[in-house]
Amino acid sequence: MSDHLPLALDAMGGDHAPLECVKGGVDYARRTGRKVLLVGPENVVRRSLDQTWTNGASVEIVPASQVIGFEDKLTAIRSKRDSSIHVGARLVRDGLASGFVSAGHTGAMMAMCKVIMGVIAGVDRPALPAPLPRRGGGKTVLVDAGANLECKPEHFRQFAVMGYHYSRWLCGITEPRVALLSVGEEESKGGEALQTVARILRHADINFIGNVEGTDLYSGRCDVVVCDGFVGNIALKVSEGLGEAIVELLREGVRQGALRRLGALAMRPVFRTLKKRMDYAEYGGVPLLGLRRVAVVAHGRSHAKAIRNALHQAEIAVDSGMVEKIAAQIERLHQAEQQIL
Amino acid sequence: MSDHLPLALDAMGGDHAPLECVKGGVDYARRTGRKVLLVGPENVVRRSLDQTWTNGASVEIVPASQVIGFEDKLTAIRSKRDSSIHVGARLVRDGLASGFVSAGHTGAMMAMCKVIMGVIAGVDRPALPAPLPRRGGGKTVLVDAGANLECKPEHFRQFAVMGYHYSRWLCGITEPRVALLSVGEEESKGGEALQTVARILRHADINFIGNVEGTDLYSGRCDVVVCDGFVGNIALKVSEGLGEAIVELLREGVRQGALRRLGALAMRPVFRTLKKRMDYAEYGGVPLLGLRRVAVVAHGRSHAKAIRNALHQAEIAVDSGMVEKIAAQIERLHQAEQQIL
Repeated sequence: MSDHLPLALDAMGGDHAPLECVKGGVDYARRTGRKVLLVGPENVVRRSLDQTWTNGASVEIVPASQVIGFEDKLTAIRSKRDSSIHVGARLVRDGLASGFVSAGHTGAMMAMCKVIMGVIAGVDRPALPAPLPRRGGGKTVLVDAGANLECKPEHFRQFAVMGYHYSRWLCGITEPRVALLSVGEEESKGGEALQTVARILRHADINFIGNVEGTDLYSGRCDVVVCDGFVGNIALKVSEGLGEAIVELLREGVRQGALRRLGALAMRPVFRTLKKRMDYAEYGGVPLLGLRRVAVVAHGRSHAKAIRNALHQAEIAVDSGMVEKIAAQIERLHQAEQQIL
Repeated sequence: MSDHLPLALDAMGGDHAPLECVKGGVDYARRTGRKVLLVGPENVVRRSLDQTWTNGASVEIVPASQVIGFEDKLTAIRSKRDSSIHVGARLVRDGLASGFVSAGHTGAMMAMCKVIMGVIAGVDRPALPAPLPRRGGGKTVLVDAGANLECKPEHFRQFAVMGYHYSRWLCGITEPRVALLSVGEEESKGGEALQTVARILRHADINFIGNVEGTDLYSGRCDVVVCDGFVGNIALKVSEGLGEAIVELLREGVRQGALRRLGALAMRPVFRTLKKRMDYAEYGGVPLLGLRRVAVVAHGRSHAKAIRNALHQAEIAVDSGMVEKIAAQIERLHQAEQQIL
C-alpha cells in the first residue's frame, strides 16, 4: 500500500534488541504489506535481518550510530544526537515516517519525542497511558503510567485532560469518569499535595468523580485514573508481577495431578481469554499523549510479537487521526482558558 | 486457659462492624478457649452478641462510648479519648490484655497505639508490614504498607530495619534481602529523595541489595521491600483489585460451558490453594511494627473469619515474644549508633 508512509521502529530498544525488534518489525511488514524503517547501527541491524525470514517484507535500515542504555541519564541522552531514538523521532518530524515505535528507555522516548516532535498547546509534558482490563469489561486508563516521575498539580490536570480525551478516543465513551488515585475515597486522605490536585481537577472541564483507591484500577468504577508516573509505574509493575506469580502458582498446582491436568485442558479457552486480556504483549504498546505526532512506547521486555502489536497500535493511532482529535479538543480547552485569564 | 491474658478486639472497626467483629471474636474465643474483650458501646455490642451463637465462648464487653470513622481527621481522632481504639490500646498498656486487634481506621490505630503503647527506642513511627505470597514460595514483606503516608529518608531506614527483623522473625531467614521500591534497578532512577534513601540504606546494618521494581513484590528476588505508606497502600490495593478481577474473569469464563465447568471442578484444589495464598482474610491482620506492645491491624473489609485470623496473628505475636525480640535487636542497633554519634 504505497499511499501509506512507513512506520519507524527503534531496532535497538528493550531487553531483547536488536533481534526481537527486527523480527517483530519484519513480521508486521510482511503481514500488513506496509513498510517499516529499522533504525539502528547498520551492521548490527543487518546481522539481525540476516537471521530473520523476511520473505519480501518491505523493510529498510535507517542508520543511527548511537544507542541509549537504560542507565543513561538525561544529559547523556540529550547528547546522543545520533541515537536510534533521536533518528526515529526525526523521521516522523520530517515527514518520512507516520509514527515511531520503541521498546527502549521510556524517559528518553518521552524527553526526545517532546523536543523533536513537539507538544500540543496546553501540554507541558507528554504522558504515558496504560489501558487496563477490568471487571465487567472495557478498559480503565491509568495516566501517567511512568513517563513523569515527579509532578506538580498542574501536570496532574494535564494528565487528567489527556486521559479523558484518550479514553473517549480509545473506548468510545462520551463522558469518561476521571478519578484521582489515592489511599482512600475521602478527600482528606493522601496529603496536602493530592488535596490540591483534587481541587484543581474538580474545576477542570472533565467528568471528575473524586478519589479512588488502588483496587479501582480494576473495579470498573472509573474510566481514567490519574497519578504521577512514579506511582503509575509501581502500580503497573506490581500488577505485572502479581499476574506472573498467579500464572506460576496455577501451573505448579496443575502439574501435581492427572485430574488437574485434564481440568486445565478443559479450561484452556478460559485461560487463553484471561492471558489475552492480561498480557501486555497482546497490547504491544501505547502512544505517548500530548505529542504532535505518533510515538508508541512498547514494553522493555518486548519480544517480536509485542513489537508487531506495538506497530499495529501506531498504525491505528495514525489511521484514526488520534493525535489530531485529542489535540483539537485540548487546544480548544486551552484557548478557552487563555481567554478567561 | 486462665494463665493467658485476654486479647482485646475493637468491636467497632471496619466496614462490617460491629456484627462481623463480634462474630469473629466469639468464634476465636470458642475455638481457642481464650478470652476476648469486645471493646465498643455496650448496648451496640450487646445487640450483636445477641445475634451470635456464643456457646460458652469467653467474651466480655469493655465499654467505649465513642467510635472513630474513616473520615475522621487526626485532631478528631485524638480528642475521642473514649473511642474503641483508645480504650483497646489502654487495656494492653495497663496489662489487662496481651494484644489489641482492630479493623478500623489504620491511621488512628497507628497514631493512638504509638501514643498509648509507646514506641521502642530508635523508632519514630510504627510501620505496617504486609507479608505477600510470591513465586517460588515464602513471603516478601512490604513495609510500610500504609501507616505513614509522607516519610523522610530516616523513616525509610527505620522501616527497613523493622522489616528486616520482622522478616527474620516471621520467615526464619537469617539474612533477609532488603530492597528499596523504585521504578528501575539503576540507582539513578526514582528521583533525588529515593537516591538519598538508597545511600542511607547502604550504610544501615541490614542486608540491603539495592533498588527493585514493582514486579519484585512477587518475584522472590528479595525478602523485604521498603517504600512509603502511600506507595505501599497503592501497591497492596492494586494487587487486591487485580486478584479480584482475575477471579471474576475466570468465573465468567467457566460459566460459559459445561466442559469448562467440569474442568474447573477438577482444578478446584488448585484454585483453593491459590485463594488460600492470595486471600487477605486467610492472613487476617498484621502487627504494627515498632510498638512496645502487640497491636494488630486487620483489613477494613474484614468479615468474621478475617477477624478470627487476625486474633490468631495477635496470639502468635504475643506467645512468640515478637515485640521483645524485634525491640531487643533494634535497641541494640540504636545504642551502637548513639555511641558512634
